[in-house]
Amino acid sequence: MRKRVVSVCGASGKIDENIEKMAYELGFLLAKSNYNVLCGGRDGVMEAVCKGVQSCEGERGLAIGILPCSDLSTANAYMDIALPTGMGYTRNSLVALMGEVMILVGGGSGTLCEATYGWQYGKQIIALEPSEGVAKKYAGKKFDDKRGDLIISAKSAKEIIEILNGFFENNEV
Amino acid sequence: MRKRVVSVCGASGKIDENIEKMAYELGFLLAKSNYNVLCGGRDGVMEAVCKGVQSCEGERGLAIGILPCSDLSTANAYMDIALPTGMGYTRNSLVALMGEVMILVGGGSGTLCEATYGWQYGKQIIALEPSEGVAKKYAGKKFDDKRGDLIISAKSAKEIIEILNGFFENNEV
Amino acid sequence: MRKRVVSVCGASGKIDENIEKMAYELGFLLAKSNYNVLCGGRDGVMEAVCKGVQSCEGERGLAIGILPCSDLSTANAYMDIALPTGMGYTRNSLVALMGEVMILVGGGSGTLCEATYGWQYGKQIIALEPSEGVAKKYAGKKFDDKRGDLIISAKSAKEIIEILNGFFENNEV
Amino acid sequence: MRKRVVSVCGASGKIDENIEKMAYELGFLLAKSNYNVLCGGRDGVMEAVCKGVQSCEGERGLAIGILPCSDLSTANAYMDIALPTGMGYTRNSLVALMGEVMILVGGGSGTLCEATYGWQYGKQIIALEPSEGVAKKYAGKKFDDKRGDLIISAKSAKEIIEILNGFFENNEV
Repeated sequence: MRKRVVSVCGASGKIDENIEKMAYELGFLLAKSNYNVLCGGRDGVMEAVCKGVQSCEGERGLAIGILPCSDLSTANAYMDIALPTGMGYTRNSLVALMGEVMILVGGGSGTLCEATYGWQYGKQIIALEPSEGVAKKYAGKKFDDKRGDLIISAKSAKEIIEILNGFFENNEV
Repeated sequence: MRKRVVSVCGASGKIDENIEKMAYELGFLLAKSNYNVLCGGRDGVMEAVCKGVQSCEGERGLAIGILPCSDLSTANAYMDIALPTGMGYTRNSLVALMGEVMILVGGGSGTLCEATYGWQYGKQIIALEPSEGVAKKYAGKKFDDKRGDLIISAKSAKEIIEILNGFFENNEV
Repeated sequence: MRKRVVSVCGASGKIDENIEKMAYELGFLLAKSNYNVLCGGRDGVMEAVCKGVQSCEGERGLAIGILPCSDLSTANAYMDIALPTGMGYTRNSLVALMGEVMILVGGGSGTLCEATYGWQYGKQIIALEPSEGVAKKYAGKKFDDKRGDLIISAKSAKEIIEILNGFFENNEV
Repeated sequence: MRKRVVSVCGASGKIDENIEKMAYELGFLLAKSNYNVLCGGRDGVMEAVCKGVQSCEGERGLAIGILPCSDLSTANAYMDIALPTGMGYTRNSLVALMGEVMILVGGGSGTLCEATYGWQYGKQIIALEPSEGVAKKYAGKKFDDKRGDLIISAKSAKEIIEILNGFFENNEV
């Protein structure tokens, strides 16, 4: 049995305290709901999500990071599994493909890059609308007409868990 | 001496006749101005651009395609150099990085993916505004605040050549 | 605290029963010794190793697969975490880079490809010599003079664990 | 019409004067025979081959480099087209896949990595046997039993051209 893997995409670098809280809560709830949480493994939203994952006690999903560098020391301190790629931003494609579903939290150009990959790969994308940035801008919208569906807007981390649980009949495969 | 390489990004698949003409003209003028033209090597805008490149007589830039597949037979018929990657959409990153400057022509999610890569890689991006799609939507705008500049808006292929010639003191390196 | 990640490289496809047993035992001992075991996620040696990992009861390392395809259904049935790349054989590079140490079990051209990557990335490489193939051919040898050390020869899975425990003062980072 | 692309793989860094001459001659003859010559774009054998390509006057094949770095300044001075990848050694896979045929000149672990890729991708591989290193070691041999053919041994650059001309009924596609 494998836990499902969910990609979380959001900005690196310094982030707003409010967004940090949302990312932390999202990580906590995903892990508690037994989802493995995959991200780019760096600071900012990624670190806050991983911190949330690791704050969960008992049986939980793991924090998995797909690093742009070839050096493990660039990983944030809250990952259970850190995997270096040495491919720089090209790893954005992997962050999108490796998750069964994609969640957007805030974000700028890097998050938009990953979101467009998610769209091209046919992944369901859920935007945490209150987190501003790319998540807010594209919630309820679409990137082009190649797909009939929309980027799903969610108002809270809790709603994201409900949406995910609706997608998956079984939590493990 | 190497000719400079310019990436052109736009939609694959069936495209509007009007956009096709613009892409063709752009390819012709870039090649005539001695730029190598790099694209994703497929149909749609990419094919029209390559066709324009090859319609240019005498000394000219080349049409270079970075293919998503591992199979040369997927290349459009108007490329001088076709390079398969076998990496699928992950090759979007290479299309962005391999050019010294990026030009947007119309486009949907794939073009937006390449444009956000261009932005992250610090490339100058020029949007052919009348070509609609991503080019129109982001002309004169920016993806985030990591850069102080904007995506440059150009009204015609001719204007793009002028902008490029302004960037590069010497046409070859 | 992160468990350390060890890459195991060996042939896909039909493998000798004897090698299958060695791979299974290696997976079991690595997992029991609390190492995460990363491989290419397919059949053959990879499947046997993963099966060994999952046969271990109680606290254990995980079986992580880096798949060549973009489709989760290509993963073998014994992985805890399956991560598709859609990059085909290009993912060999990632299998080598993502582990802190590399272990060779039998193998042909694919394993040799991953072993040369391990060498270029400066990873310690341990060859399970009795498993034949690439492991036997290169045990105690080197690929070139860029490194002063050799590919370490191990006679058994048990010896590999001893070598690994010697490398790492602490099992987790 | 596209010129065919041939990959040439050999060591970076300081190389023997004798091997340098062979690589230069090979580049010259390939270009004169109208083949585009693709390599990793760095120094050593790669630079010597590119220098040979550019020493050819009149209509000729081009020297194309697929760089590991994201920075054009790392290209050797003798390339007609330099394409950065930012993917480090992962670009070895591309060097192998992008050529229709692969030629080995000397080489260590990096060349062996590219040769095993060529084998996995089903490329014809020709080893310039007198150039020592990986070329000599594997000339007339095979990496595993997945293919029925062998790595072809060639005694000179001239013989390589004859072999290539035998492969391809038409020089352009």
